[in-house]
Amino acid sequence: MQEIKKYVEENQQRFLDELFELLRIPSVSADPKYKDDVIKTAEFVAEKLKSAGADKVELCETAGYPIVYGEKIIDQSKPTVLVYGHYDVQPPDPLELWDTPPFEPTVRDGKIFARGACDDKGQFYMHVKAFELMQEKGLLGCNVKFMIEGEEEVGSENLGVFVENNKERLSADVVLISDTAMISLENPSLETGLRGLSYVEVEVTGPNRDLHSGVYGGAVANPATILAKMIASLHDENNHIAVPGFYDDVAELSDSERKQINEAPFELETYKEDLGIKEIWGEKGYTTLERTGIRPTLEVNGIWGGYIGEGAKTVLPSKANAKISMRLVPNQDSETITQLFKKHFESIAPDYVTVKVSPHHGGEPVVTPTDSVAYKAAAKAIAESFGKEPIPTRGGGSIPIVALFEKELGIKTVLMGFGLDSDNLHSPNEKYDIANYLKGIETIPLFYKYFNELS
Amino acid sequence: MQEIKKYVEENQQRFLDELFELLRIPSVSADPKYKDDVIKTAEFVAEKLKSAGADKVELCETAGYPIVYGEKIIDQSKPTVLVYGHYDVQPPDPLELWDTPPFEPTVRDGKIFARGACDDKGQFYMHVKAFELMQEKGLLGCNVKFMIEGEEEVGSENLGVFVENNKERLSADVVLISDTAMISLENPSLETGLRGLSYVEVEVTGPNRDLHSGVYGGAVANPATILAKMIASLHDENNHIAVPGFYDDVAELSDSERKQINEAPFELETYKEDLGIKEIWGEKGYTTLERTGIRPTLEVNGIWGGYIGEGAKTVLPSKANAKISMRLVPNQDSETITQLFKKHFESIAPDYVTVKVSPHHGGEPVVTPTDSVAYKAAAKAIAESFGKEPIPTRGGGSIPIVALFEKELGIKTVLMGFGLDSDNLHSPNEKYDIANYLKGIETIPLFYKYFNELS
Repeated sequence: MQEIKKYVEENQQRFLDELFELLRIPSVSADPKYKDDVIKTAEFVAEKLKSAGADKVELCETAGYPIVYGEKIIDQSKPTVLVYGHYDVQPPDPLELWDTPPFEPTVRDGKIFARGACDDKGQFYMHVKAFELMQEKGLLGCNVKFMIEGEEEVGSENLGVFVENNKERLSADVVLISDTAMISLENPSLETGLRGLSYVEVEVTGPNRDLHSGVYGGAVANPATILAKMIASLHDENNHIAVPGFYDDVAELSDSERKQINEAPFELETYKEDLGIKEIWGEKGYTTLERTGIRPTLEVNGIWGGYIGEGAKTVLPSKANAKISMRLVPNQDSETITQLFKKHFESIAPDYVTVKVSPHHGGEPVVTPTDSVAYKAAAKAIAESFGKEPIPTRGGGSIPIVALFEKELGIKTVLMGFGLDSDNLHSPNEKYDIANYLKGIETIPLFYKYFNELS
Repeated sequence: MQEIKKYVEENQQRFLDELFELLRIPSVSADPKYKDDVIKTAEFVAEKLKSAGADKVELCETAGYPIVYGEKIIDQSKPTVLVYGHYDVQPPDPLELWDTPPFEPTVRDGKIFARGACDDKGQFYMHVKAFELMQEKGLLGCNVKFMIEGEEEVGSENLGVFVENNKERLSADVVLISDTAMISLENPSLETGLRGLSYVEVEVTGPNRDLHSGVYGGAVANPATILAKMIASLHDENNHIAVPGFYDDVAELSDSERKQINEAPFELETYKEDLGIKEIWGEKGYTTLERTGIRPTLEVNGIWGGYIGEGAKTVLPSKANAKISMRLVPNQDSETITQLFKKHFESIAPDYVTVKVSPHHGGEPVVTPTDSVAYKAAAKAIAESFGKEPIPTRGGGSIPIVALFEKELGIKTVLMGFGLDSDNLHSPNEKYDIANYLKGIETIPLFYKYFNELS
C-alpha cells in the first residue's frame, strides 16, 4: 500500500494533466457534429493504454463509434478482470448554466469541473493509470482486458453486437466498472444493483399545420394541452405510475432488505438544501432511498411544442413532443415495459389528436451478488484504502451493458464507483473531486491483489 | 367602378412586384436579430406612401420601432379616414415546414406564399395602392391619414404612447383596418368584433440544477411533469377554463344573437378536412363559430423544458416553461384576467416547485357597430365589388389597438379584411390570394366614395 500511495503522489500532476487532455476533447456521442472529436478521443485512449503497457491495443470498428480494446495476459492460470468504461459524454446543454466551459476542465475547491469529469472519463481513466502503476511496480496479479466504448450515452447499441461476436476474446472472471457513485469519502459504498431503462419519444399531432390561436383557438384541440393532460395522467394521486401492468413484474423486497437499504446515511434536510427544494416528491409508501434504488420511475426528460423563442407568438401548434424514460427494477423487462407504455399512451390519446410513440434504447435492471469473490475483493480493497468497510447500496442509474455481460458472457460485475451523487452527472457543472480520482487509482490495484488472493 | 377596375388591371404586375419587394424584407419584430430589416421595411413603406402622393410622410420615432405616418388632406370639411396597418411580421419558425422560403415570395395556384403575405403586409399595402389609384384618377373624396406601425406582433406597446401624444394629428372620423379575414370571395363578410388578449409566460422550477434522472428520478419533483399537471388542470372535463372568476365578466349573447352568429356559412366536414383532424374540440355547449367568435379561450402557445435535441438524454430538468395566452370577449378586461390567471396558477403550484408568472402584452376585446355610416359604406363597397352583401361575423383574433383607438381618440373602427382563415397566419406557408389582394385594391376606393356620400 505504501508503494502504491507513493507512486500516486509522485505522479499525481501528470495523472491530472492527462485526464484534462482527455476532457478537452468534446466526445458527445448524441450529436453528429462532434463525430471527429469522438473518434479522436478513442485514439487518445488507445494511445494511453498502449503506453501504460497494454498489448493488442485496437480500435475495434462497429456500426457506430469504435470500441477501444487492450489487454495484458500475464498468466493463463490467473484470474482475469474485464474493465469496462466509456469515453463518450453527455451533451453539455444547457451551455449557459455552466460556470466554466464544459470542455475546458477547471479546478475549483479541489474539484475538476468538465463534461465527463466523472461520467465516465475521470472514472475509467483511473483504471488506465492504476494499470500503469501495477505494470511499473510489478504489482499486476491478474490478467486484465480493457473494453472502453464510445456509445454508452446513446444506448450502447453496437457494443452488444461486439460482445456477441467476441465472446472468447472477452472471456474473464469478473467485469469491473467504475461508472457509479459512492456515498462519500467518509462513507464509502459499493453499488449492488442498477436500474434498467426504457426510453421513448412521444409525438402528439393535432391540426396538420401551426394555426393562428385567435382564429382557431378554442375550437381545435391544442396538442400541447393534450400532451400535458396525457403526461399528467401518467402518475396517479399517490405518484404511482398509471400504466396498466407496469408494476406486475416488480420484485418486492422483504422488510429486512428494505431496512438494510434505509440504513445508508441519508439526511433529508441536507438533501433538500443541496437541491434547493422545499419538499421532496415521490411514490407514496417509500423512502427517498427506496424511490431511487428499488422502485421503478417514469420521468419526462424533455418536452417541447409551439413557439419557444423570445417574445410572444400566438400560435396553436400542430405538434407537441416529449422524451420520457422509465427506470426499471428487477424483474422488469425493458422491452415489455416499452410496449406497455406504448399501448397505454396510444390508448389514452383522444380522437382529436394522433399519437406516435418511438422507442429509443433500453436496458435491463441488474442485481450484483455480495457473496462473490469479486465483491469481497472490492470490499476489502476499499476497506484498506478508505479505512472503512463499504456500505452496500442500490444505484438508481442504469448501465444497460451490465445485464448484457451477464447474458452474453456469463460474468457478474463489480460496480466500484468513486463518484458522488452531487457530481452533476448529465447536468451543467459536472465535476469530479481530485481526491476521489486519486483515491480510485490507489484502490484499484488493491482490488487486483485481493481478487487474485481470494480466487 | 370601370375606371377603378381598369387601373388595377393595367397596374397589377407592378402592384405585385412592389408587394414582393416588401415581403422580401424579414421584418420580424419579436427577434432583435432582424432589427435592421424592420427599420428598412419602415423606410420602404414611407417611400411608397410618398411616391403615391402622401404629404408629411415621416418615420415617427418610438421607444421601439418607428411608426410610419403620412396624410393627404384634400378638404377640412370632408370626412377623414385613418388607415392603420402594421409592417412587422411574425417569426417564421418552424422554418423546416415551409415549402418555399418565408422571405422569398413565391406564387403557386394564384396564391402568394410568404411570411406577412396576408398579415399584414399584403393587406395594408392594398391601402397604399388604392390611395395611389385615387390620387392618379382624381377619385379621393375623403381626407386620409396613414399610421403603419412595426410592433403589432409584439403587442403594440409603443403605439399607445404615440396615439396618446398625437391625438390632434390623428383625429379622424373612422379607423379603417384590413388585418382580418372574410369567409370567402363568394361569401364576403365584415368582422364586427375582435377578441382581447392576455398573454403570460410561466416558469416552473424544481431542483436548482438539471439532475441525472437515474440518481434523482422518482424522489424529486420533475418540473416538466408538474407543469403538465398544472396545464392539464386549466380546462375542466367540459373544456371550460378552470381559473376562478374567469367567466365573471363575459357578456352572454342573446339567443337571437347566437342564432345570427351561426348563420354564417360553415361546413364541419370541410373544416376538419382542411385541418386534417378527426374530431373538433372545444367548450361544451357552444358551436365552432361561437367558440372562435364569442367565447374566451386559453391556449398553450409554447412549452419547453429539459433536453429537446436529437437522441436521448436522461435528465430531470431544473425548469419547465410555457407561453399561455387567453382570448377575451366583451366585457372581459385583460389586466383583470392576467391577474386572475397569475393568482390561480401560483395557488395551484405544489410545495415542491416554485412558479413565476410573467405577463406579456394584453389587449381589450371590441365590438364594432353595424349601424354606423362607416360600416354601411364598407358594406356598400363590398356589395358593389363582390356582387353580394357582406355577412357580419365575429373575429377570433385580436387587434388590441382597436380598443385603444376607441378609448384615446374616440373613433370606431371598420374591419375590412380581405384575408381568409386558411391563409396560415402565424404558421408556415402563410399565403394571400392574388385575387383577394387585387379585389381589395378595387374595393377600398369604393369605401371612400360611399363614406364621403353617406357622411
